[in-house]
Amino acid sequence: MSIDPERHARTLAALAASPHDVLICNSATEVLLLTGYWPVMGASIAVLSVDGALKVIVPEDEVELASKTSCAEIIPYHPAGLSTLKNPLQILKEPLRSVMKALHAPRAKIGLQLDNGVQPASYAVSYQFRASLLELLRELQPQSHFASCDELLEQMKAVKTPRELDLIQKSCDVAAAGFDVAQSSIRPGMRETEIAAAIQGAFETATQAEGLERSYGYFFCMSGPNSAKAAAAYARTRRRVVEEGDLVMIHANTCADGYWTDLTRTYTAGRPSQKQNDIRIAIDAARAAGLSAIHPHATGHEVDRAARDVMKSHGFGSEFKHAAGHGVGFAAANPNGRPRIHPLSQDVLEAGMTFNLEPAAYFDGYGGMRHCNVIAVTSDGAKVMTDF
Amino acid sequence: MSIDPERHARTLAALAASPHDVLICNSATEVLLLTGYWPVMGASIAVLSVDGALKVIVPEDEVELASKTSCAEIIPYHPAGLSTLKNPLQILKEPLRSVMKALHAPRAKIGLQLDNGVQPASYAVSYQFRASLLELLRELQPQSHFASCDELLEQMKAVKTPRELDLIQKSCDVAAAGFDVAQSSIRPGMRETEIAAAIQGAFETATQAEGLERSYGYFFCMSGPNSAKAAAAYARTRRRVVEEGDLVMIHANTCADGYWTDLTRTYTAGRPSQKQNDIRIAIDAARAAGLSAIHPHATGHEVDRAARDVMKSHGFGSEFKHAAGHGVGFAAANPNGRPRIHPLSQDVLEAGMTFNLEPAAYFDGYGGMRHCNVIAVTSDGAKVMTDF
Repeated sequence: MSIDPERHARTLAALAASPHDVLICNSATEVLLLTGYWPVMGASIAVLSVDGALKVIVPEDEVELASKTSCAEIIPYHPAGLSTLKNPLQILKEPLRSVMKALHAPRAKIGLQLDNGVQPASYAVSYQFRASLLELLRELQPQSHFASCDELLEQMKAVKTPRELDLIQKSCDVAAAGFDVAQSSIRPGMRETEIAAAIQGAFETATQAEGLERSYGYFFCMSGPNSAKAAAAYARTRRRVVEEGDLVMIHANTCADGYWTDLTRTYTAGRPSQKQNDIRIAIDAARAAGLSAIHPHATGHEVDRAARDVMKSHGFGSEFKHAAGHGVGFAAANPNGRPRIHPLSQDVLEAGMTFNLEPAAYFDGYGGMRHCNVIAVTSDGAKVMTDF
Repeated sequence: MSIDPERHARTLAALAASPHDVLICNSATEVLLLTGYWPVMGASIAVLSVDGALKVIVPEDEVELASKTSCAEIIPYHPAGLSTLKNPLQILKEPLRSVMKALHAPRAKIGLQLDNGVQPASYAVSYQFRASLLELLRELQPQSHFASCDELLEQMKAVKTPRELDLIQKSCDVAAAGFDVAQSSIRPGMRETEIAAAIQGAFETATQAEGLERSYGYFFCMSGPNSAKAAAAYARTRRRVVEEGDLVMIHANTCADGYWTDLTRTYTAGRPSQKQNDIRIAIDAARAAGLSAIHPHATGHEVDRAARDVMKSHGFGSEFKHAAGHGVGFAAANPNGRPRIHPLSQDVLEAGMTFNLEPAAYFDGYGGMRHCNVIAVTSDGAKVMTDF
């Protein structure tokens, strides 16, 4: 598969306009951004030079995967094997030295991932380079200048290309296969673990995943008082038995070949109460208001306010405890993913941005309701990518 | 819950014997090691001083979890919220400044996680500090000396305390609930995704998980030619339809509250062929030989050789493509987890070490068979923790 030409052109333009001559990325998400290949173990290094040269150092085990979706020049290496017992960074040294040497740029200004950030899990385990990649590069390129390119990468990830939008849509479609069985999987007497497993199973076996190399999903079920705790930065399925009338929240982060969703639906086990209906009416209205506020040039705080004002007017202002959304696509659950749909956000929306819109209300000890969609900004408004 | 007193005593002794005065850890596994609390989002910082003071800076959302399993002094902070829109590291600065100030050790020699390493996933997403924590600490403690404590941490993680062994055993027991249904879940005509989902479901709903805060599992199914590719550093379930007579490999990494397993069983879809029986006989004999070689003072390469010699004598030497094992428990799938059971490993076994023993044979285009157990070194030999 050829690399996404639109992404490659944008990346080169961004690099040319930046203070960097070379970008070196090692986190899986940013290797995907630069090369179209989503590393499994996080032990790959992508090197992009302002003259357009794009190389990626890849564990031998991942070369087949990398070749399928990237036309970057692939340089294989063996992070582990029977004939060696070294730290992978020591093994990376020689291929990285060759790549840097071929650049003929000993004084290059090199942009690196130095700041903290949130990465989606690309496998059960992953390599983390911490401060060691910088140290190795300083040894290989003693006359180079190194600086963080994290902010540049955040901006680059915010606006998706048409091909990336298609892949995010695919991720949303596979996630929908899980949510299709959610309502029918929820019955009083079942444990949260059982409900989550049933939905997860539907996702794992979805025919929508055909054609994908890797389709991962994390589905969570939180019921009754546990759903009130879902305002937290993370979701958690427990062994609680669902009771008649409970709010039951299903949250998912799914991914298709590196492109992520962030999705929530809330159900009632049995017949909804008047209170639950009132909350749902407020959340539906907040969704609609948020959606109407989305268009190119709108700012993140305006969209947040549109949704928040509705929640306030329905009497649920203080129960809407988090921002109305954040960037999704390269990111999964990252409050700092661009654009931030937050009361303080000055992020300006552009066509091609994708984020979640997640109006919610949480009542300690009782329950929580959240409806979270993935939204794409279009040339004249918004498209709900999870319209189910 | 009180902290594991044996672990705390060992940690303090190791720190006292090291060149460091203070250890600062941010990766989830090492925060667990020092404090007994396994972070969810990886945004927590544990600080241990040689005088015994142990503090951990914890996102507000994780304080309840942290309090359940750690008696370290917990300092809550808010990495994200409605009233702020900052990078979490900027928010960490003040609590970290307070913690460092309270140490009264401006010239402390501080051990940090600086090298690369392999982390198991603690959630769908996780914070990565990269080089930024070092930079922040240099600002807060300009007169301190910073050095990598990664090697010290590797050594500390290698030998488990009795309480940690119990928790790893629990993790193995929950994993067994998945494998219990593996044989009956495998039928010709099913997709790998369907088989993996059935086993995953049994794991997710296992009663063995009762009493655990968080029980995660990654189950993979690889059949026929795909199982031959399982010699790679990672496993991958595909949509292939299993055929009569296929080798079907089920691989799992599961965790109970931060303590991990690494497990594989291989089945036949239908009746095993003579060739498959021959491979199984070799692998069973290699397992037995490896197990017999395990005792305190044995070296990693001796155990590897014991298993490898058997595979060679059965004619499968070149098909046994990877090391015979690696440390497991704090690590999941990490070829550099201590002790390394590798042809070049000089790691010396001690009672309380846990690792996997994974004799295997892979035949390109045909299939692979691997039997991977978690083993604990005892005072006079070995205990198979996954005896099912």
